[in-house]
Amino acid sequence: MPFAYDYARPALTVDCVVFGLDEADLKVLLIQRDLEPFAGRWALPGGFIHMDETLDQAARRELQEETGLAKVFLEQLYTVSDIGRDPRERVVTVAYYALVRLGDHHVQAATDARNAAWFSADDLPRLAFDHDVIVSMALQRLQGKLRYQPIGFELLPPKFSLTRLQQMYEIILERPLDKRNFRKKVLSLDILEDLEEVEQDVAHRAARLYRFDERKYRQKINDGFNFEL
Amino acid sequence: MPFAYDYARPALTVDCVVFGLDEADLKVLLIQRDLEPFAGRWALPGGFIHMDETLDQAARRELQEETGLAKVFLEQLYTVSDIGRDPRERVVTVAYYALVRLGDHHVQAATDARNAAWFSADDLPRLAFDHDVIVSMALQRLQGKLRYQPIGFELLPPKFSLTRLQQMYEIILERPLDKRNFRKKVLSLDILEDLEEVEQDVAHRAARLYRFDERKYRQKINDGFNFEL
Repeated sequence: MPFAYDYARPALTVDCVVFGLDEADLKVLLIQRDLEPFAGRWALPGGFIHMDETLDQAARRELQEETGLAKVFLEQLYTVSDIGRDPRERVVTVAYYALVRLGDHHVQAATDARNAAWFSADDLPRLAFDHDVIVSMALQRLQGKLRYQPIGFELLPPKFSLTRLQQMYEIILERPLDKRNFRKKVLSLDILEDLEEVEQDVAHRAARLYRFDERKYRQKINDGFNFEL
Repeated sequence: MPFAYDYARPALTVDCVVFGLDEADLKVLLIQRDLEPFAGRWALPGGFIHMDETLDQAARRELQEETGLAKVFLEQLYTVSDIGRDPRERVVTVAYYALVRLGDHHVQAATDARNAAWFSADDLPRLAFDHDVIVSMALQRLQGKLRYQPIGFELLPPKFSLTRLQQMYEIILERPLDKRNFRKKVLSLDILEDLEEVEQDVAHRAARLYRFDERKYRQKINDGFNFEL
């Protein structure tokens, strides 16, 4: 073994909780492990950090390699270090969470033929390692951040109706919101652009479409504006 | 070198940004390095993780060893992994921030005779490694969290006047607050206990003293209350 040190070192990994949203549910992307420990069990995409990359780069590389996902919203979540969390040896993992637009990305299994699949966040299979704890932490972070940062737009298509926007908040926050108050609040923030288009091919009455105006949002933040929904 | 691995591993450390508050300033606790690299330069207390401890335990042990501080509020901040951040070798560090009551704790230098001292957060000396970046991140986290979690009380004595409480917010948020609005807001949260005592030995008119009622706060949080100041 060619890498020797004066003191013992934990192995260092990254793990990613990837969230997506469909009409009904918040989803989490999992891969099925083909090796022990936990062979056959579902787990978060992730792996060991390389010496020539930062943690962010490692997380993006692992996501790409294991699920085909690239250019997603990715943020560091928490570093988990319980002594016995990996049965093989001491492994410290830096957890990330990612937000993706489900329509934009075709998820593919890694080249080593492991399955990759989306699961409902509230109905996950039994996970490998302490990945259930990491998913809970990611969900809590997402729920907390949603209120004061416009990260939810990362989960929506670029054009969306106010109904779709409200559904996103309701699904993630796990509670119904009053329609009239929600619309009043969200429009008063003045960070949505009315596209003067309506939905196409819908059974119900076509709703007006909006997009998140990120430039306007950044300008307002610079001017001391507090996003809060 | 007795510890050998199949793949290279970064060294893993913890570093702590310890905040304290006096009448005028937010303070940061620093230690003066006696070894290269950066010998003589001021730095955050911290060090290498042991194989039989979690990151939280490592942070508490290093704080105790290097500054004598024990039983402080401590929270993980961010894990920093820039490739060249340590000139010796690849070191990934898990940054923590701690909040202490200045009166409660006598800070002492470590047994290996390094200096430990408090510096004003807005007038720090040149720091070792990327510790200036870590301090900035900690300050930003503290400013952000202060608004929606009652962590500021960790910096105050157990009994405080509303003026002292307001000063704490003003010092950390770096802006003046309207006295009347502040008092109205903070009392309306109904998480302070009026101790029916007044300050002793003060030159100005003695102000009424309060304490943070943590039990009441937890109860309210369980009932769906949102702390926001």
